Amino acid sequence: MPSHCLNGGGWILGNLIDGTQAERVRIPHADYSLYAIPAGADDVALVMLSDILPTGFECGVLRGCLKPGDTLAIVGAGPIGLATLLTAQFYAPAESILIDVDENRLAWAKKLGATRTINNSDGLAAEKVLALTGGRGVDVAVEAIGHAASFDVCQAIVAPGGHLANIGVHGKPVQLNLDRLWSHNLTLTTQLVDATSTRRLLRAVSDGRLDPKQLITHHFVLDQMMQAYDTFAQAMAQQALKVIISNLP
Amino acid sequence: MPSHCLNGGGWILGNLIDGTQAERVRIPHADYSLYAIPAGADDVALVMLSDILPTGFECGVLRGCLKPGDTLAIVGAGPIGLATLLTAQFYAPAESILIDVDENRLAWAKKLGATRTINNSDGLAAEKVLALTGGRGVDVAVEAIGHAASFDVCQAIVAPGGHLANIGVHGKPVQLNLDRLWSHNLTLTTQLVDATSTRRLLRAVSDGRLDPKQLITHHFVLDQMMQAYDTFAQAMAQQALKVIISNLP
Amino acid sequence: MPSHCLNGGGWILGNLIDGTQAERVRIPHADYSLYAIPAGADDVALVMLSDILPTGFECGVLRGCLKPGDTLAIVGAGPIGLATLLTAQFYAPAESILIDVDENRLAWAKKLGATRTINNSDGLAAEKVLALTGGRGVDVAVEAIGHAASFDVCQAIVAPGGHLANIGVHGKPVQLNLDRLWSHNLTLTTQLVDATSTRRLLRAVSDGRLDPKQLITHHFVLDQMMQAYDTFAQAMAQQALKVIISNLP
Amino acid sequence: MPSHCLNGGGWILGNLIDGTQAERVRIPHADYSLYAIPAGADDVALVMLSDILPTGFECGVLRGCLKPGDTLAIVGAGPIGLATLLTAQFYAPAESILIDVDENRLAWAKKLGATRTINNSDGLAAEKVLALTGGRGVDVAVEAIGHAASFDVCQAIVAPGGHLANIGVHGKPVQLNLDRLWSHNLTLTTQLVDATSTRRLLRAVSDGRLDPKQLITHHFVLDQMMQAYDTFAQAMAQQALKVIISNLP
Repeated sequence: MPSHCLNGGGWILGNLIDGTQAERVRIPHADYSLYAIPAGADDVALVMLSDILPTGFECGVLRGCLKPGDTLAIVGAGPIGLATLLTAQFYAPAESILIDVDENRLAWAKKLGATRTINNSDGLAAEKVLALTGGRGVDVAVEAIGHAASFDVCQAIVAPGGHLANIGVHGKPVQLNLDRLWSHNLTLTTQLVDATSTRRLLRAVSDGRLDPKQLITHHFVLDQMMQAYDTFAQAMAQQALKVIISNLP
Repeated sequence: MPSHCLNGGGWILGNLIDGTQAERVRIPHADYSLYAIPAGADDVALVMLSDILPTGFECGVLRGCLKPGDTLAIVGAGPIGLATLLTAQFYAPAESILIDVDENRLAWAKKLGATRTINNSDGLAAEKVLALTGGRGVDVAVEAIGHAASFDVCQAIVAPGGHLANIGVHGKPVQLNLDRLWSHNLTLTTQLVDATSTRRLLRAVSDGRLDPKQLITHHFVLDQMMQAYDTFAQAMAQQALKVIISNLP
Repeated sequence: MPSHCLNGGGWILGNLIDGTQAERVRIPHADYSLYAIPAGADDVALVMLSDILPTGFECGVLRGCLKPGDTLAIVGAGPIGLATLLTAQFYAPAESILIDVDENRLAWAKKLGATRTINNSDGLAAEKVLALTGGRGVDVAVEAIGHAASFDVCQAIVAPGGHLANIGVHGKPVQLNLDRLWSHNLTLTTQLVDATSTRRLLRAVSDGRLDPKQLITHHFVLDQMMQAYDTFAQAMAQQALKVIISNLP
Repeated sequence: MPSHCLNGGGWILGNLIDGTQAERVRIPHADYSLYAIPAGADDVALVMLSDILPTGFECGVLRGCLKPGDTLAIVGAGPIGLATLLTAQFYAPAESILIDVDENRLAWAKKLGATRTINNSDGLAAEKVLALTGGRGVDVAVEAIGHAASFDVCQAIVAPGGHLANIGVHGKPVQLNLDRLWSHNLTLTTQLVDATSTRRLLRAVSDGRLDPKQLITHHFVLDQMMQAYDTFAQAMAQQALKVIISNLP
């Protein structure tokens, strides 16, 4: 469990010390966290492997115990939700339902492999998922936002015996409906990415089973740093998923 | 998952239809739920296998993924908590900490194998468990009461990467502290007993690895039915764990 | 483990009693083994679900613990090997290497998703697989023929920590090279199909993730029964995989 | 899988370089393989944790997937077999059957927790185990010698769906009876000890759940080195299990 390593390791960059927006950077415990970029690989695509793809894969897909033939619902079609969707396809789910309030993001989800999308602007997503699944709910529900409302959708739609994999960073406690769920054979998980899947994901990129570039919507050069941050801050309005800042013109 | 079987099965007796306090009873789907009592077995002891032992074992020990060497805490030293404690010993935990507010029940817990007991009358159980475990918490925390307060102890003491196995029947929602736990690599489970472990438990009783009679504190005959119920209703005051009603004098 | 059920169940048809080439048939323990064909489904395609697809999936893919990104080798590109190949794709292996001596079958394998094929007519398949994998070998080796020679290829190519899933029906003992493999962290499995995956496979056919018709090469009507058997008996020469006999003209 | 680590690590001492019978020794990759001895611990007892206890536990108990209530048979009551027996008790098997040809070792096995012992001098151990288990065989069979004959006992007695965990170091190939076992739902494993359980075993010794000293039969000082080796070379005749050489009088 590298994410919780007490003795060196754990979540350091961007948490305990500053991140890496610099020309050179000292990486603590580099032996355990750096990977050689394969010859001929696309540097820009591999930026997606530094965080969101292992996060979606480990905290959503693997912790959610997704199996071939499962029905999967992902609440949140932002970059993390879409990274979950992309890597979920390694397990051939029968259905991948993406839920969001933004039509543009749901259109991206469709392009990236969602079998259905639900716009939850009307707050009826849970009812719709239950209707789609004959009242049973989904095998795996992934919370990819970090809000009480999206957590509530997840706990309403997970089937008996199902998995609720929380990825979202929550700022407040949530209500867990144990009055209904105590007998539901539920497995609820939380996880800080361990980045133990990086090698596997690198291989998937190399052999074409995974195309991380699909998550990149905007490119900036270093001089446009502030503009890049502004774009990402208003990601939904700017129709942005991930934003790349590079020193290449 | 027999507990949630839609097509016959599921939780029927005492839930969808009346229970079995009668001289004869028709058991739906009996092929899947009745077991022959081995010759020479103690009928009275085996009553404990009808519910609390599989509940403690399946919903607490197995769902909590208890492993040899783990530190286990059980919140609630009533019959279900003690059934969990008894069956936890199949997995040789390093520590079995029982938490309750009743000294008599904690004394029972000691007798049944708890390595430590904590009286939570002062509301400081969580702090004490953290102190005992060097601040890390326990590998497996079992909620065996069904109250928000006992759930709170569990979520406060489960270590990063640990398991919180809820057994208690909750009448209300609880607060889940995802603001702290989102990154805790927590696995939280709920479970309605499936009784799939009955055969294994029967064997454990037969070969002496499990002594369920230890959970029985009171015996009544049929004429004392009301007295038996009164005793169980005031279990703590009566120092009662499980109560047997039989037609034998 | 339905395949070894002692108390009713187990492998009955074609083993303890005659098979089902008749217009009507009495199926023992039918409650556990018959599935309703979904409306609109293709009867002929679903014949493939009666045996070879669950066999390849359960005995090869699931018992071999295939994971996304694994390197898979299947020795034998007959119907069972190809059923393994088709269902392996639910787990997105990085490489699926099919080994056989028949070019026609290897061409089928390519069409059905093999990333590489090796013609073992020269007996050098093991060396070639080791060369392809930098000397390490494959994560999962599936024996899909039932001969000592194909078993030998598997035990030569499985990587340390890998899985050797035997599906083939062997008429004789084989030699297991424990002098080399005792320290190899090998997991070797055998399995009689349990058909517990039938519902999942039915769903995969229904939603288009699996196309079993690809395994059918020849169609006959009942009057051509003997011709159908002759064709299957000389499957390799006839370029036959699976043969359908129906009462439809 | 530290035992097969290519990049530093793996099995070095006593394999690629000389072992540690010296007053000082340089340990390659010491960060990953040395553990601090807890204050107050018995140095001599902990010698058993350097090899045989993790070997028995990891290669026999864990790889054999022993579960509470299982029937376990261990073929070979030498130090490795007895280390397997001791650590198997973490999982509360219903039966632990030890098989050997030496009455003294079988008497040790009884003392260390075997529920039954079988002297295989007559070559009838397999028949006796099958008779004891109603013809079904055992859930877990552990090969702890490294001979074809002991492997044969294991493959004869493992039940359908069971595990055959090979620990023994084999000098020659064995015959694997796939003509019978192809349909037996067998899991056969081999394993070189990874020593990943050392911390857990240390804790089990510290809290009294495991007493490794029981495996030590003879003590020598450095001056008696040759005598110690002679004793171990004729272990059976000398009624020796493990032999300690120390610099303490």
